[in-house]
Amino acid sequence: MGSYLSRELRKAGLEIGRYNRSPKDGWKSLEELRSQVVSFDLILLCVSDKAIQAVSELLPTTDVLLAHVAGAAPLGFLNENHNRRAVFYPLMSITADSQLSLTQIPFCLEATSEPDLEILENLVHEIGAKSYRINSEQRKYLHLAAVIGQNFTNHLYHKAFDILSGQNIDSSVLMPLLEKSLTKLHRHKPADLQTGPALRQDNESMQKHLDLLDRSIDKDIYSLLSKSIQQTHDEKL
Amino acid sequence: MGSYLSRELRKAGLEIGRYNRSPKDGWKSLEELRSQVVSFDLILLCVSDKAIQAVSELLPTTDVLLAHVAGAAPLGFLNENHNRRAVFYPLMSITADSQLSLTQIPFCLEATSEPDLEILENLVHEIGAKSYRINSEQRKYLHLAAVIGQNFTNHLYHKAFDILSGQNIDSSVLMPLLEKSLTKLHRHKPADLQTGPALRQDNESMQKHLDLLDRSIDKDIYSLLSKSIQQTHDEKL
Repeated sequence: MGSYLSRELRKAGLEIGRYNRSPKDGWKSLEELRSQVVSFDLILLCVSDKAIQAVSELLPTTDVLLAHVAGAAPLGFLNENHNRRAVFYPLMSITADSQLSLTQIPFCLEATSEPDLEILENLVHEIGAKSYRINSEQRKYLHLAAVIGQNFTNHLYHKAFDILSGQNIDSSVLMPLLEKSLTKLHRHKPADLQTGPALRQDNESMQKHLDLLDRSIDKDIYSLLSKSIQQTHDEKL
Repeated sequence: MGSYLSRELRKAGLEIGRYNRSPKDGWKSLEELRSQVVSFDLILLCVSDKAIQAVSELLPTTDVLLAHVAGAAPLGFLNENHNRRAVFYPLMSITADSQLSLTQIPFCLEATSEPDLEILENLVHEIGAKSYRINSEQRKYLHLAAVIGQNFTNHLYHKAFDILSGQNIDSSVLMPLLEKSLTKLHRHKPADLQTGPALRQDNESMQKHLDLLDRSIDKDIYSLLSKSIQQTHDEKL
Protein backbone atom coordinates (compact mmCIF):
# COMPACT_ATOMS: atom_id res chain seq x y z
CA MET A 1 0.00 0.00 0.00
CA GLY A 2 2.81 2.43 0.92
CA SER A 3 4.72 1.70 -2.29
CA TYR A 4 1.61 2.11 -4.43
CA LEU A 5 0.29 5.27 -2.74
CA SER A 6 3.65 7.05 -2.63
CA ARG A 7 4.32 6.27 -6.31
CA GLU A 8 0.87 7.31 -7.53
CA LEU A 9 0.55 10.40 -5.34
CA ARG A 10 3.94 11.55 -6.63
CA LYS A 11 2.74 10.99 -10.20
CA ALA A 12 -0.28 13.13 -9.32
CA GLY A 13 2.12 16.00 -8.55
CA LEU A 14 2.43 15.78 -4.78
CA GLU A 15 5.77 16.09 -3.00
CA ILE A 16 6.28 12.78 -1.23
CA GLY A 17 8.82 11.50 1.28
CA ARG A 18 8.92 7.77 2.00
CA TYR A 19 10.09 6.48 5.35
CA ASN A 20 10.67 2.94 6.52
CA ARG A 21 12.37 1.25 9.45
CA SER A 22 14.43 -0.73 6.88
CA PRO A 23 14.89 1.81 4.05
CA LYS A 24 15.31 0.54 0.48
CA ASP A 25 16.11 2.60 -2.63
CA GLY A 26 14.20 5.85 -2.55
CA TRP A 27 13.09 5.45 1.05
CA LYS A 28 14.45 7.26 4.09
CA SER A 29 14.98 6.06 7.66
CA LEU A 30 12.67 6.85 10.57
CA GLU A 31 15.45 9.00 12.06
CA GLU A 32 15.23 11.30 9.03
CA LEU A 33 11.46 11.43 9.55
CA ARG A 34 11.97 12.91 13.03
CA SER A 35 14.04 15.81 11.72
CA GLN A 36 11.78 16.57 8.74
CA VAL A 37 8.26 15.90 10.01
CA VAL A 38 7.36 19.45 11.07
CA SER A 39 7.40 20.59 7.44
CA PHE A 40 4.80 17.98 6.36
CA ASP A 41 1.14 18.57 5.54
CA LEU A 42 0.09 14.96 6.00
CA ILE A 43 1.55 11.70 7.25
CA LEU A 44 0.01 8.53 5.78
CA LEU A 45 0.66 5.56 8.05
CA CYS A 46 0.75 2.57 5.69
CA VAL A 47 1.24 -0.29 8.11
CA SER A 48 -0.74 -3.42 8.99
CA ASP A 49 -3.87 -2.96 11.13
CA LYS A 50 -2.16 -4.48 14.16
CA ALA A 51 0.85 -2.13 13.86
CA ILE A 52 -1.13 1.13 13.71
CA GLN A 53 -1.25 1.63 17.49
CA ALA A 54 2.41 0.82 18.10
CA VAL A 55 3.78 2.86 15.19
CA SER A 56 1.58 5.88 15.93
CA GLU A 57 2.98 5.82 19.49
CA LEU A 58 6.54 5.83 18.15
CA LEU A 59 5.99 8.74 15.75
CA PRO A 60 6.96 12.22 17.00
CA THR A 61 3.84 14.06 18.15
CA THR A 62 3.43 17.21 16.12
CA ASP A 63 0.64 19.33 14.65
CA VAL A 64 0.89 17.45 11.34
CA LEU A 65 -2.25 15.58 10.25
CA LEU A 66 -1.72 11.83 10.81
CA ALA A 67 -3.87 9.32 8.93
CA HIS A 68 -3.90 5.56 8.69
CA VAL A 69 -5.06 3.84 5.50
CA ALA A 70 -6.71 0.68 6.88
CA GLY A 71 -10.28 -0.38 6.20
CA ALA A 72 -10.76 -2.65 9.18
CA ALA A 73 -9.14 -0.43 11.84
CA PRO A 74 -10.99 2.38 13.65
CA LEU A 75 -9.61 5.90 13.85
CA GLY A 76 -9.12 5.22 17.58
CA PHE A 77 -6.12 2.99 16.82
CA LEU A 78 -4.08 6.17 16.28
CA ASN A 79 -2.39 7.35 19.46
CA GLU A 80 -4.26 10.31 20.95
CA ASN A 81 -1.08 12.26 21.58
CA HIS A 82 -1.39 13.28 17.96
CA ASN A 83 -3.71 16.30 17.82
CA ARG A 84 -4.96 15.79 14.28
CA ARG A 85 -5.96 12.23 13.41
CA ALA A 86 -7.70 10.82 10.36
CA VAL A 87 -8.40 7.79 8.20
CA PHE A 88 -7.57 7.85 4.48
CA TYR A 89 -8.83 4.46 3.28
CA PRO A 90 -8.72 3.50 -0.41
CA LEU A 91 -11.47 0.89 -0.92
CA MET A 92 -9.64 -1.22 -3.49
CA SER A 93 -7.53 -4.34 -3.63
CA ILE A 94 -4.04 -2.84 -3.97
CA THR A 95 -0.61 -4.43 -4.32
CA ALA A 96 2.78 -2.70 -4.62
CA ASP A 97 2.81 -3.14 -8.41
CA SER A 98 -0.88 -2.29 -9.04
CA GLN A 99 -1.25 -0.51 -12.38
CA LEU A 100 -4.48 1.07 -11.20
CA SER A 101 -4.94 4.83 -11.51
CA LEU A 102 -5.72 6.71 -8.29
CA THR A 103 -8.72 8.23 -10.07
CA GLN A 104 -10.44 4.81 -10.07
CA ILE A 105 -10.28 4.44 -6.30
CA PRO A 106 -13.01 5.55 -3.87
CA PHE A 107 -11.34 7.10 -0.80
CA CYS A 108 -13.18 6.66 2.51
CA LEU A 109 -12.36 9.55 4.80
CA GLU A 110 -12.70 10.28 8.51
CA ALA A 111 -11.02 12.90 10.68
CA THR A 112 -11.19 14.23 14.24
CA SER A 113 -12.11 17.68 12.93
CA GLU A 114 -14.22 19.07 10.10
CA PRO A 115 -11.35 21.23 8.70
CA ASP A 116 -9.09 18.19 8.47
CA LEU A 117 -11.84 16.19 6.78
CA GLU A 118 -12.12 18.98 4.21
CA ILE A 119 -8.33 19.00 3.70
CA LEU A 120 -8.50 15.28 2.85
CA GLU A 121 -11.54 15.80 0.62
CA ASN A 122 -9.68 18.50 -1.27
CA LEU A 123 -6.67 16.23 -1.68
CA VAL A 124 -8.84 13.44 -3.11
CA HIS A 125 -10.57 15.95 -5.37
CA GLU A 126 -7.19 17.25 -6.60
CA ILE A 127 -5.99 13.79 -7.59
CA GLY A 128 -9.24 13.30 -9.53
CA ALA A 129 -10.72 10.58 -7.33
CA LYS A 130 -14.02 10.33 -5.46
CA SER A 131 -14.28 10.60 -1.69
CA TYR A 132 -16.85 9.34 0.82
CA ARG A 133 -17.27 10.38 4.45
CA ILE A 134 -17.25 7.12 6.38
CA ASN A 135 -16.86 7.06 10.15
CA SER A 136 -15.29 4.18 12.08
CA GLU A 137 -18.66 2.58 12.94
CA GLN A 138 -19.77 2.72 9.29
CA ARG A 139 -16.41 1.40 8.14
CA LYS A 140 -16.91 -1.81 10.13
CA TYR A 141 -20.04 -2.47 8.08
CA LEU A 142 -18.36 -1.34 4.87
CA HIS A 143 -15.62 -3.89 5.45
CA LEU A 144 -18.23 -6.59 6.05
CA ALA A 145 -20.08 -5.57 2.86
CA ALA A 146 -16.80 -5.74 0.92
CA VAL A 147 -16.14 -9.26 2.22
CA ILE A 148 -19.63 -10.41 1.19
CA GLY A 149 -19.68 -8.48 -2.11
CA GLN A 150 -16.11 -9.19 -3.18
CA ASN A 151 -14.46 -12.10 -1.31
CA PHE A 152 -17.55 -14.31 -1.30
CA THR A 153 -18.59 -13.56 -4.89
CA ASN A 154 -15.02 -14.25 -6.03
CA HIS A 155 -15.26 -17.64 -4.36
CA LEU A 156 -18.55 -18.33 -6.17
CA TYR A 157 -16.84 -17.37 -9.44
CA HIS A 158 -14.23 -19.98 -8.55
CA LYS A 159 -16.97 -22.57 -8.00
CA ALA A 160 -18.66 -21.67 -11.30
CA PHE A 161 -15.38 -21.73 -13.28
CA ASP A 162 -14.47 -25.03 -11.64
CA ILE A 163 -17.72 -26.59 -12.90
CA LEU A 164 -17.00 -25.28 -16.42
CA SER A 165 -13.44 -26.55 -16.40
CA GLY A 166 -14.72 -30.01 -15.36
CA GLN A 167 -16.75 -30.03 -18.58
CA ASN A 168 -13.94 -28.62 -20.76
CA ILE A 169 -15.88 -25.39 -21.24
CA ASP A 170 -13.85 -22.19 -21.61
CA SER A 171 -14.78 -19.92 -18.70
CA SER A 172 -14.76 -16.91 -21.06
CA VAL A 173 -18.26 -18.02 -22.15
CA LEU A 174 -19.60 -16.81 -18.79
CA MET A 175 -17.78 -13.45 -18.58
CA PRO A 176 -20.19 -11.29 -20.65
CA LEU A 177 -23.16 -12.38 -18.49
CA LEU A 178 -21.25 -11.64 -15.28
CA GLU A 179 -20.02 -8.27 -16.53
CA LYS A 180 -23.42 -7.15 -17.83
CA SER A 181 -25.02 -8.16 -14.52
CA LEU A 182 -22.55 -6.11 -12.53
CA THR A 183 -22.80 -3.08 -14.83
CA LYS A 184 -26.57 -3.01 -14.30
CA LEU A 185 -25.98 -2.31 -10.59
CA HIS A 186 -25.06 1.27 -11.48
CA ARG A 187 -28.73 1.87 -12.29
CA HIS A 188 -30.72 -0.91 -10.62
CA LYS A 189 -30.94 -2.55 -7.21
CA PRO A 190 -29.62 -6.12 -7.20
CA ALA A 191 -32.87 -7.38 -5.63
CA ASP A 192 -34.77 -6.03 -8.66
CA LEU A 193 -32.40 -7.85 -11.04
CA GLN A 194 -32.63 -11.23 -9.31
CA THR A 195 -33.44 -14.13 -11.64
CA GLY A 196 -33.00 -17.91 -11.57
CA PRO A 197 -34.61 -21.15 -10.41
CA ALA A 198 -34.73 -20.20 -6.69
CA LEU A 199 -36.58 -16.94 -7.36
CA ARG A 200 -39.19 -18.59 -9.58
CA GLN A 201 -39.54 -21.53 -7.16
CA ASP A 202 -38.47 -23.93 -9.93
CA ASN A 203 -37.87 -26.95 -7.71
CA GLU A 204 -37.28 -29.28 -10.64
CA SER A 205 -34.32 -27.25 -11.94
CA MET A 206 -32.97 -26.81 -8.41
CA GLN A 207 -33.04 -30.57 -7.79
CA LYS A 208 -31.29 -31.21 -11.11
CA HIS A 209 -28.55 -28.74 -10.10
CA LEU A 210 -28.14 -30.36 -6.69
CA ASP A 211 -27.75 -33.74 -8.42
CA LEU A 212 -24.97 -32.35 -10.61
CA LEU A 213 -22.95 -31.17 -7.60
CA ASP A 214 -20.59 -33.77 -6.15
CA ARG A 215 -19.45 -32.26 -2.86
CA SER A 216 -21.77 -31.89 0.09
CA ILE A 217 -20.49 -28.37 0.86
CA ASP A 218 -21.41 -27.26 -2.68
CA LYS A 219 -24.91 -28.70 -2.25
CA ASP A 220 -25.14 -26.86 1.09
CA ILE A 221 -24.11 -23.57 -0.55
CA TYR A 222 -26.63 -24.09 -3.36
CA SER A 223 -29.46 -24.84 -0.92
CA LEU A 224 -28.64 -22.05 1.53
CA LEU A 225 -28.30 -19.30 -1.08
CA SER A 226 -31.47 -20.50 -2.83
CA LYS A 227 -33.31 -20.37 0.50
CA SER A 228 -31.94 -16.87 1.15
CA ILE A 229 -33.08 -15.67 -2.30
CA GLN A 230 -36.56 -17.03 -1.61
CA GLN A 231 -36.71 -15.44 1.86
CA THR A 232 -35.62 -12.07 0.46
CA HIS A 233 -38.22 -12.28 -2.27
CA ASP A 234 -41.01 -13.40 0.09
CA GLU A 235 -40.32 -10.38 2.27
CA LYS A 236 -40.71 -8.11 -0.72
CA LEU A 237 -44.15 -9.54 -1.60
CA MET B 1 -36.26 -13.55 -26.44
CA GLY B 2 -38.12 -13.77 -29.79
CA SER B 3 -38.70 -10.01 -29.90
CA TYR B 4 -35.08 -9.25 -29.08
CA LEU B 5 -33.50 -11.80 -31.44
CA SER B 6 -35.76 -10.97 -34.41
CA ARG B 7 -35.14 -7.22 -33.99
CA GLU B 8 -31.37 -7.53 -33.61
CA LEU B 9 -30.87 -10.20 -36.29
CA ARG B 10 -32.81 -7.97 -38.70
CA LYS B 11 -30.56 -5.02 -37.76
CA ALA B 12 -27.60 -7.29 -38.53
CA GLY B 13 -28.90 -7.60 -42.10
CA LEU B 14 -30.76 -10.92 -41.97
CA GLU B 15 -34.18 -11.39 -43.54
CA ILE B 16 -36.50 -12.28 -40.68
CA GLY B 17 -40.11 -13.47 -40.48
CA ARG B 18 -41.80 -13.44 -37.07
CA TYR B 19 -44.59 -15.88 -36.30
CA ASN B 20 -46.79 -16.15 -33.25
CA ARG B 21 -50.03 -17.95 -32.34
CA SER B 22 -51.43 -14.52 -31.35
CA PRO B 23 -49.80 -12.20 -33.91
CA LYS B 24 -49.17 -8.56 -32.95
CA ASP B 25 -47.88 -5.75 -35.17
CA GLY B 26 -45.14 -7.05 -37.42
CA TRP B 27 -45.77 -10.68 -36.56
CA LYS B 28 -47.51 -13.29 -38.75
CA SER B 29 -49.79 -16.16 -37.80
CA LEU B 30 -48.71 -19.79 -37.57
CA GLU B 31 -50.89 -20.54 -40.63
CA GLU B 32 -48.68 -18.24 -42.71
CA LEU B 33 -45.65 -20.08 -41.33
CA ARG B 34 -46.93 -23.33 -42.84
CA SER B 35 -47.11 -21.86 -46.34
CA GLN B 36 -43.77 -20.07 -46.18
CA VAL B 37 -41.55 -22.39 -44.18
CA VAL B 38 -39.93 -24.28 -47.07
CA SER B 39 -38.10 -21.14 -48.19
CA PHE B 40 -36.44 -20.65 -44.80
CA ASP B 41 -32.78 -21.31 -43.90
CA LEU B 42 -33.36 -21.50 -40.16
CA ILE B 43 -36.26 -21.57 -37.70
CA LEU B 44 -35.50 -20.27 -34.21
CA LEU B 45 -38.01 -21.61 -31.72
CA CYS B 46 -38.21 -18.91 -29.03
CA VAL B 47 -40.62 -20.48 -26.55
CA SER B 48 -40.40 -21.48 -22.89
CA ASP B 49 -38.45 -24.65 -22.05
CA LYS B 50 -41.64 -26.56 -21.29
CA ALA B 51 -43.26 -25.62 -24.65
CA ILE B 52 -40.34 -26.73 -26.86
CA GLN B 53 -41.54 -30.33 -27.23
CA ALA B 54 -45.19 -29.43 -27.92
CA VAL B 55 -44.46 -26.59 -30.37
CA SER B 56 -41.81 -28.57 -32.27
CA GLU B 57 -44.43 -31.32 -32.72
CA LEU B 58 -46.91 -28.81 -34.14
CA LEU B 59 -44.46 -27.30 -36.63
CA PRO B 60 -44.54 -28.67 -40.21
CA THR B 61 -41.68 -31.15 -40.64
CA THR B 62 -39.38 -29.96 -43.42
CA ASP B 63 -35.69 -29.97 -44.27
CA VAL B 64 -35.27 -26.56 -42.69
CA LEU B 65 -32.85 -26.36 -39.75
CA LEU B 66 -34.87 -26.06 -36.52
CA ALA B 67 -33.19 -24.69 -33.38
CA HIS B 68 -34.41 -23.85 -29.90
CA VAL B 69 -32.77 -21.05 -27.91
CA ALA B 70 -33.05 -22.39 -24.34
CA GLY B 71 -30.13 -22.88 -21.97
CA ALA B 72 -31.73 -25.41 -19.67
CA ALA B 73 -33.38 -27.63 -22.32
CA PRO B 74 -31.53 -30.45 -24.14
CA LEU B 75 -31.51 -30.73 -27.91
CA GLY B 76 -33.65 -33.85 -27.42
CA PHE B 77 -36.68 -31.67 -26.56
CA LEU B 78 -37.05 -30.98 -30.31
CA ASN B 79 -39.33 -33.50 -32.02
CA GLU B 80 -37.27 -36.03 -33.97
CA ASN B 81 -39.54 -35.79 -37.00
CA HIS B 82 -37.47 -32.74 -37.89
CA ASN B 83 -34.38 -33.96 -39.74
CA ARG B 84 -32.10 -31.08 -38.84
CA ARG B 85 -32.17 -30.06 -35.17
CA ALA B 86 -30.00 -27.64 -33.23
CA VAL B 87 -29.61 -25.39 -30.19
CA PHE B 88 -28.81 -21.69 -30.61
CA TYR B 89 -28.48 -20.48 -27.03
CA PRO B 90 -27.45 -16.89 -26.23
CA LEU B 91 -25.86 -16.97 -22.75
CA MET B 92 -27.13 -13.61 -21.56
CA SER B 93 -30.00 -12.20 -19.54
CA ILE B 94 -32.25 -10.87 -22.31
CA THR B 95 -35.58 -9.06 -22.20
CA ALA B 96 -37.70 -7.85 -25.13
CA ASP B 97 -36.37 -4.28 -24.79
CA SER B 98 -32.70 -5.17 -24.12
CA GLN B 99 -30.42 -2.55 -25.65
CA LEU B 100 -27.61 -5.07 -25.80
CA SER B 101 -25.76 -5.58 -29.09
CA LEU B 102 -25.70 -9.13 -30.47
CA THR B 103 -21.92 -8.83 -30.70
CA GLN B 104 -21.69 -8.86 -26.90
CA ILE B 105 -23.45 -12.21 -26.57
CA PRO B 106 -21.71 -15.62 -26.47
CA PHE B 107 -23.79 -18.10 -28.51
CA CYS B 108 -23.71 -21.72 -27.34
CA LEU B 109 -24.27 -24.01 -30.31
CA GLU B 110 -25.21 -27.66 -30.78
CA ALA B 111 -26.57 -29.48 -33.84
CA THR B 112 -27.37 -33.02 -34.93
CA SER B 113 -24.83 -32.74 -37.76
CA GLU B 114 -21.43 -31.15 -38.25
CA PRO B 115 -22.51 -29.19 -41.38
CA ASP B 116 -25.44 -27.64 -39.47
CA LEU B 117 -23.14 -26.75 -36.59
CA GLU B 118 -20.89 -24.97 -39.07
CA ILE B 119 -23.88 -23.13 -40.57
CA LEU B 120 -24.73 -21.78 -37.12
CA GLU B 121 -21.09 -20.92 -36.41
CA ASN B 122 -20.95 -18.97 -39.66
CA LEU B 123 -24.14 -17.13 -38.76
CA VAL B 124 -22.73 -16.13 -35.36
CA HIS B 125 -19.47 -15.10 -37.01
CA GLU B 126 -21.37 -12.97 -39.55
CA ILE B 127 -23.23 -11.06 -36.86
CA GLY B 128 -19.89 -10.37 -35.16
CA ALA B 129 -20.48 -12.45 -32.05
CA LYS B 130 -18.52 -15.31 -30.48
CA SER B 131 -19.70 -18.92 -30.58
CA TYR B 132 -18.98 -21.92 -28.38
CA ARG B 133 -19.69 -25.58 -29.12
CA ILE B 134 -21.64 -26.81 -26.11
CA ASN B 135 -23.48 -30.12 -26.16
CA SER B 136 -26.61 -30.85 -24.10
CA GLU B 137 -24.68 -32.57 -21.31
CA GLN B 138 -22.24 -29.66 -21.04
CA ARG B 139 -25.09 -27.17 -21.17
CA LYS B 140 -26.61 -28.64 -17.98
CA TYR B 141 -23.39 -27.77 -16.18
CA LEU B 142 -23.12 -24.41 -17.92
CA HIS B 143 -26.58 -23.53 -16.64
CA LEU B 144 -25.58 -24.57 -13.12
CA ALA B 145 -22.40 -22.48 -13.38
CA ALA B 146 -24.46 -19.49 -14.54
CA VAL B 147 -26.79 -19.85 -11.54
CA ILE B 148 -23.85 -19.96 -9.14
CA GLY B 149 -21.80 -17.29 -10.93
CA GLN B 150 -24.65 -14.89 -11.69
CA ASN B 151 -27.84 -15.54 -9.65
CA PHE B 152 -26.02 -16.28 -6.41
CA THR B 153 -23.45 -13.49 -6.72
CA ASN B 154 -26.26 -11.04 -7.53
CA HIS B 155 -27.94 -12.09 -4.29
CA LEU B 156 -24.70 -11.49 -2.38
CA TYR B 157 -24.49 -8.04 -3.98
CA HIS B 158 -28.00 -7.50 -2.61
CA LYS B 159 -26.82 -8.54 0.86
CA ALA B 160 -23.77 -6.26 0.65
CA PHE B 161 -25.77 -3.26 -0.61
CA ASP B 162 -28.38 -3.89 2.08
CA ILE B 163 -25.70 -3.64 4.77
CA LEU B 164 -24.44 -0.37 3.26
CA SER B 165 -27.91 1.09 3.00
CA GLY B 166 -28.50 0.25 6.69
CA GLN B 167 -25.52 2.51 7.49
CA ASN B 168 -26.51 5.27 5.04
CA ILE B 169 -23.53 4.48 2.85
CA ASP B 170 -23.95 5.00 -0.90
CA SER B 171 -23.48 1.62 -2.58
CA SER B 172 -21.50 3.29 -5.37
CA VAL B 173 -18.51 3.22 -3.00
CA LEU B 174 -18.26 -0.55 -3.52
CA MET B 175 -18.67 -0.66 -7.32
CA PRO B 176 -15.03 0.02 -8.37
CA LEU B 177 -13.78 -2.84 -6.16
CA LEU B 178 -16.39 -5.22 -7.57
CA GLU B 179 -15.71 -4.20 -11.16
CA LYS B 180 -11.94 -4.41 -10.86
CA SER B 181 -12.25 -7.86 -9.27
CA LEU B 182 -14.41 -9.16 -12.10
CA THR B 183 -12.18 -7.64 -14.81
CA LYS B 184 -9.18 -9.49 -13.37
CA LEU B 185 -10.88 -12.81 -14.20
CA HIS B 186 -10.02 -12.25 -17.87
CA ARG B 187 -6.40 -12.93 -16.97
CA HIS B 188 -6.39 -14.71 -13.62
CA LYS B 189 -8.14 -17.65 -11.98
CA PRO B 190 -10.54 -16.58 -9.22
CA ALA B 191 -8.88 -18.97 -6.76
CA ASP B 192 -5.58 -17.12 -7.29
CA LEU B 193 -7.29 -13.77 -6.57
CA GLN B 194 -9.00 -14.85 -3.36
CA THR B 195 -8.43 -12.53 -0.40
CA GLY B 196 -10.19 -11.82 2.88
CA PRO B 197 -10.46 -12.90 6.51
CA ALA B 198 -11.49 -16.50 5.73
CA LEU B 199 -8.49 -17.11 3.48
CA ARG B 200 -6.00 -15.72 5.99
CA GLN B 201 -7.72 -17.59 8.87
CA ASP B 202 -8.38 -14.25 10.60
CA ASN B 203 -10.86 -15.58 13.16
CA GLU B 204 -11.02 -12.29 15.04
CA SER B 205 -12.29 -10.37 11.99
CA MET B 206 -14.67 -13.18 11.09
CA GLN B 207 -16.21 -13.16 14.56
CA LYS B 208 -16.60 -9.37 14.42
CA HIS B 209 -18.42 -9.72 11.11
CA LEU B 210 -20.71 -12.44 12.46
CA ASP B 211 -21.56 -10.15 15.39
CA LEU B 212 -22.55 -7.37 12.98
CA LEU B 213 -25.02 -9.60 11.12
CA ASP B 214 -28.53 -9.66 12.60
CA ARG B 215 -30.25 -12.52 10.80
CA SER B 216 -29.33 -16.12 11.42
CA ILE B 217 -29.44 -16.96 7.69
CA ASP B 218 -26.86 -14.22 7.00
CA LYS B 219 -24.60 -15.63 9.71
CA ASP B 220 -25.06 -19.10 8.15
CA ILE B 221 -24.10 -17.78 4.70
CA TYR B 222 -21.05 -16.01 6.14
CA SER B 223 -19.90 -19.14 7.99
CA LEU B 224 -20.56 -21.56 5.14
CA LEU B 225 -18.82 -19.49 2.44
CA SER B 226 -15.88 -18.83 4.79
CA LYS B 227 -15.60 -22.58 5.43
CA SER B 228 -15.76 -23.28 1.70
CA ILE B 229 -13.00 -20.71 0.99
CA GLN B 230 -10.83 -22.37 3.63
CA GLN B 231 -11.49 -25.88 2.27
CA THR B 232 -10.65 -24.77 -1.28
CA HIS B 233 -7.44 -23.16 -0.08
CA ASP B 234 -6.43 -26.13 2.08
CA GLU B 235 -6.80 -28.42 -0.94
CA LYS B 236 -4.46 -26.20 -2.92
CA LEU B 237 -1.72 -26.39 -0.27
